[in-house]
Amino acid sequence: MISVGIIGGSGYLGKKLIQFCNEHPYIDDFTVYANTTAGNNLLSVFPEFKGFVNNKLILPIKDISFSHDVYFFALPHGEAIKLIPSLLSIGKKVIDLSGDFRLDSAADYEKWYGLEHTAPNLLKEKLYGLADKKNYYVNDAKLIANPGCYPTAALLSVLPLVLKYGSEIISLSIVAYSGTSGAGKSPKTDLLLSEMDGNVKAYNVHKHRHEPEILQELKKNGFISHFSFTTHLLPISVGIYSTSIAHLSTELKHEDVIDVYEEYYSSSHFVRLRQTPPELNWVVGTNFCDINVSVKGNSVILTSAIDNLIKGGAGQAIQNMNKLFKWEEFTGLITKREKDVSVY
Amino acid sequence: MISVGIIGGSGYLGKKLIQFCNEHPYIDDFTVYANTTAGNNLLSVFPEFKGFVNNKLILPIKDISFSHDVYFFALPHGEAIKLIPSLLSIGKKVIDLSGDFRLDSAADYEKWYGLEHTAPNLLKEKLYGLADKKNYYVNDAKLIANPGCYPTAALLSVLPLVLKYGSEIISLSIVAYSGTSGAGKSPKTDLLLSEMDGNVKAYNVHKHRHEPEILQELKKNGFISHFSFTTHLLPISVGIYSTSIAHLSTELKHEDVIDVYEEYYSSSHFVRLRQTPPELNWVVGTNFCDINVSVKGNSVILTSAIDNLIKGGAGQAIQNMNKLFKWEEFTGLITKREKDVSVY
Amino acid sequence: MISVGIIGGSGYLGKKLIQFCNEHPYIDDFTVYANTTAGNNLLSVFPEFKGFVNNKLILPIKDISFSHDVYFFALPHGEAIKLIPSLLSIGKKVIDLSGDFRLDSAADYEKWYGLEHTAPNLLKEKLYGLADKKNYYVNDAKLIANPGCYPTAALLSVLPLVLKYGSEIISLSIVAYSGTSGAGKSPKTDLLLSEMDGNVKAYNVHKHRHEPEILQELKKNGFISHFSFTTHLLPISVGIYSTSIAHLSTELKHEDVIDVYEEYYSSSHFVRLRQTPPELNWVVGTNFCDINVSVKGNSVILTSAIDNLIKGGAGQAIQNMNKLFKWEEFTGLITKREKDVSVY
Amino acid sequence: MISVGIIGGSGYLGKKLIQFCNEHPYIDDFTVYANTTAGNNLLSVFPEFKGFVNNKLILPIKDISFSHDVYFFALPHGEAIKLIPSLLSIGKKVIDLSGDFRLDSAADYEKWYGLEHTAPNLLKEKLYGLADKKNYYVNDAKLIANPGCYPTAALLSVLPLVLKYGSEIISLSIVAYSGTSGAGKSPKTDLLLSEMDGNVKAYNVHKHRHEPEILQELKKNGFISHFSFTTHLLPISVGIYSTSIAHLSTELKHEDVIDVYEEYYSSSHFVRLRQTPPELNWVVGTNFCDINVSVKGNSVILTSAIDNLIKGGAGQAIQNMNKLFKWEEFTGLITKREKDVSVY
Repeated sequence: MISVGIIGGSGYLGKKLIQFCNEHPYIDDFTVYANTTAGNNLLSVFPEFKGFVNNKLILPIKDISFSHDVYFFALPHGEAIKLIPSLLSIGKKVIDLSGDFRLDSAADYEKWYGLEHTAPNLLKEKLYGLADKKNYYVNDAKLIANPGCYPTAALLSVLPLVLKYGSEIISLSIVAYSGTSGAGKSPKTDLLLSEMDGNVKAYNVHKHRHEPEILQELKKNGFISHFSFTTHLLPISVGIYSTSIAHLSTELKHEDVIDVYEEYYSSSHFVRLRQTPPELNWVVGTNFCDINVSVKGNSVILTSAIDNLIKGGAGQAIQNMNKLFKWEEFTGLITKREKDVSVY
Repeated sequence: MISVGIIGGSGYLGKKLIQFCNEHPYIDDFTVYANTTAGNNLLSVFPEFKGFVNNKLILPIKDISFSHDVYFFALPHGEAIKLIPSLLSIGKKVIDLSGDFRLDSAADYEKWYGLEHTAPNLLKEKLYGLADKKNYYVNDAKLIANPGCYPTAALLSVLPLVLKYGSEIISLSIVAYSGTSGAGKSPKTDLLLSEMDGNVKAYNVHKHRHEPEILQELKKNGFISHFSFTTHLLPISVGIYSTSIAHLSTELKHEDVIDVYEEYYSSSHFVRLRQTPPELNWVVGTNFCDINVSVKGNSVILTSAIDNLIKGGAGQAIQNMNKLFKWEEFTGLITKREKDVSVY
Repeated sequence: MISVGIIGGSGYLGKKLIQFCNEHPYIDDFTVYANTTAGNNLLSVFPEFKGFVNNKLILPIKDISFSHDVYFFALPHGEAIKLIPSLLSIGKKVIDLSGDFRLDSAADYEKWYGLEHTAPNLLKEKLYGLADKKNYYVNDAKLIANPGCYPTAALLSVLPLVLKYGSEIISLSIVAYSGTSGAGKSPKTDLLLSEMDGNVKAYNVHKHRHEPEILQELKKNGFISHFSFTTHLLPISVGIYSTSIAHLSTELKHEDVIDVYEEYYSSSHFVRLRQTPPELNWVVGTNFCDINVSVKGNSVILTSAIDNLIKGGAGQAIQNMNKLFKWEEFTGLITKREKDVSVY
Repeated sequence: MISVGIIGGSGYLGKKLIQFCNEHPYIDDFTVYANTTAGNNLLSVFPEFKGFVNNKLILPIKDISFSHDVYFFALPHGEAIKLIPSLLSIGKKVIDLSGDFRLDSAADYEKWYGLEHTAPNLLKEKLYGLADKKNYYVNDAKLIANPGCYPTAALLSVLPLVLKYGSEIISLSIVAYSGTSGAGKSPKTDLLLSEMDGNVKAYNVHKHRHEPEILQELKKNGFISHFSFTTHLLPISVGIYSTSIAHLSTELKHEDVIDVYEEYYSSSHFVRLRQTPPELNWVVGTNFCDINVSVKGNSVILTSAIDNLIKGGAGQAIQNMNKLFKWEEFTGLITKREKDVSVY
């Protein structure tokens, strides 16, 4: 049994972390830290917790205890970086859900996040925590950079193709749509229901921070081609839908590509390969990433769906914690589980 | 042809006023005034206007021109009251969409709005502008208090019953649901799509400011019974749905009550009586108020639906302006119009 | 450990029953029966189950096994009644989620459901399964009529008031709004997203089948006054919001009424009393019923919110099963649970 | 003044056609024909028309009058083709909103629509009616094939790029999302609000009928590269959002590409170029197509938004009719209009 610190516990990711920690069989104690809501009872921030999450006081982040075994950070970019080095220095495990440690290069961080990186050595030491990547081992990692929500949906769907056919890919275009919860809980006029009801819009075209993150991981796996990544906002709260189009220099056979994906995910607990494009409703509320592969001539179209706050955030973070502590990967994420052998 | 001043032109009601004024055949000129957005081009506030509303600079409210023929005020409560008396004193016509002049009593205003009323004499002089009320004449009114959105939907559905059967009504309970645009455009966490998606909640129970407004108008028409008014927020942007339940001391006949409503609205242009409960989608985007009457034994259930920003705001304001200037009541609100004689 | 039969397993209630049975710690075996989907793998009906509900063949209802310990019926009205008597005759436990056994009188059933009741004796023997009612005991009940979704939300909010102040209530008006899943999974044009997007409408005014069900239970508890019940459709899939207005002959004190509710629900596991009107999002996905009480002068306004498919269907059915088998009432419905002692 | 026949008037496109014809200043008479709803009053199909569309009887299609000046067909694919040749043979003008005449080749039609084409000569004679295409003239066209909804949004955004840089485009990937109204009004379980609420899904991947239509028009304009088109369903009723990614063999300058678009659309009435990605809400309810161009290095990302039923259907059909009869292109589509000269 372990003790957990959740730093940044009053946002949407914090809420999910609290729910998972509360239900997790091997966590007997967790403490929630936050800035603006410090001093409040957790129930005043999340009235929906009444009756199944303990009454708890939210503590100020400055009073963070050093007695926890693992720390989840769900702070805005640039905040976690101030606290994490000291925790690591006393041997604590840290899983950061912000973008502070996802990129490998301090220069890239500065370019895309507009902040100087104050712990560049940790960028190299950290483990990029894409938990369903094949041959992903956490071993004795100390700092896990939990992937961005979009990169999780995108990478899980394109990595097997890139690994196998990287040199034949002419271009890869990723088009993703997200629910508004990905934009956080701070009040902004353009995120009001009155504005977003029935609305759709692209945003941060050619300049979303998840673009260098995806490209970095693709390049590590042999990707060398034309690339683009485009993000959109959906008129719903939760979920990411990602559509990736690869144009290749040769024609592929549908069965061959399917084989690649089935082999790649043969031991994954949370990737479900699908014979039809997934529906967002299939994955919302779960830690699953559902993927469909469609091949026709020289083009491969990959669709994937995740819950942005779970598989794209708190759920994957819990999965990473389970791996850190050598527990079954799905502990606290799914109650019963029998691997469906005929995945496809 | 007239010139119009729109004060408070960057909110949801302001937007609708601009659209109606832009299309109105007898308005050849309108100026938009606002505080926070002053100095901006209208298109930067409402990009959707591009191509059909002129490029216009938004002027600061302090620079309001005295050369307009009529002024629409769409400011927060307590703001219009500072400007309106001086406009009236030079003989201008004013239609106020705020709550500043709806109540007849300064004491009630202070009780419900928490502000001292600085022009109590105008509370008596103003005309309460429920435009589809039978025998509603504006004559030479100078100040029209445009009704609240909820009162418009509620009063139009219950007034004929109250007028005819007031003394037999034991209790009248009005339950209304509104889209979020009624709560305005200021950013608030609880109005984010992330919070309101799939959500419903009652609010201001027993203390909504539209309650005394409705009750005041009912009492003028003979209402003396138990009363309640309860408001809820819907997970959509636009529309109000009102359901009123009257329990009576005697049994009524369905046909008799229908006759009362048909007679009452026989010359109304914007009330449509319905044989089934109206659907919100039938009225959204229009100045119509659709009403259904259902009678069974001692109980009468009245359902009504309006667009809260049009019939419950800018549309009714235009209708009032049309009446002020002796134009056809539906000018600029509906292009073609043949009164459907068999309303029911 | 028990074996469960789920009859009518391919609709929305069936889906929830399957999910709960799959997670329930004391159910080691459940079989799904249906008509139109018989012969299919469960995963073809509910692709979202992949990976956490076993592959299972859906069996035809005619092949129902007599070896289960308890049977959940989630069939359309008039269907369960054909099968239930024979199961009861061999000593099986049955929980029926249809309306076939909710009313006490065969005449009422015929009047409201348009069908002759073929097992009128069972109408008397059955237990009306409002699981959070105070002093609700199932003892050795054989047939439990699971309450309708609307009656669950309505009765839980008004019963304590009716019990305590029944003779002083002049009128009680219940206005409820439901998500579309309550209307089932059969394709109908008026339930298309294209029709219901942004839409709201009242329906079955003065003739909803849940009206006599609510009134029957109220009368058993002393209600003798004017009554109405009005239902509406929301543009969302899941949830019921119920608003009840009681006008009384005397003024009540807020604290007194709160005391009545706190005492009434002091040992309930699934009713949460709230200091503000509940939000639908607080209860969706849970078996909770959240209730707020607002008193002002002679009027009491009660708002309540439930998940129509869980507390208003499958969750309450599981709760009833737990009681039948003398398990902790919340088994399989909530993992951890510490009764929040200061409910209000 | 002309007389219009609307064939297939009870679906979503039919509804919009009726509304536009009703408001059009040069149409003094229109008749609605349909199959399943024939014999009904139009108001029973569209209760929202009450008060502004005349009471009208819907006539059976077999009773189609030959006295109209122009015929709009909004029938399912394969139906219009049976009636159109005879109307053309007597010199009537026809605008077909189905897919029957969009493709140029009977073989393609058979391949993608699964039907033999019975009037292949008309495939050559018809005019493909992309009304905002530069140098688009209808002259004395007799049969106009109104473009598909997706092709309208996609082609308007990519055509200028393809015309100018066609030989440098390596790949073009179009990813489009549509509201459910594009799937029609027939009841289907997967289009229920209960299924689509909060949902998103790709569909017809690699096999949507609008793919050959888009590619055909691109090829006519010099396109020779890798191509893909992927369609998705949004959890809203109305609107199409299209995102097109072009990877080029050379780097382009943002200003150069903007110049191309500004020049191309310099005399268009309904294409609005935008400095930021358009929002769907800006165009819903209008005949506008809003387009944003973003250039970075070798990639160009084009986003466009339309109302699928108006610009992608009935509005564009009216625009085509206006051109056929040499009226101002925007007659009946927009009341006031001053071309915004500084489009960008």
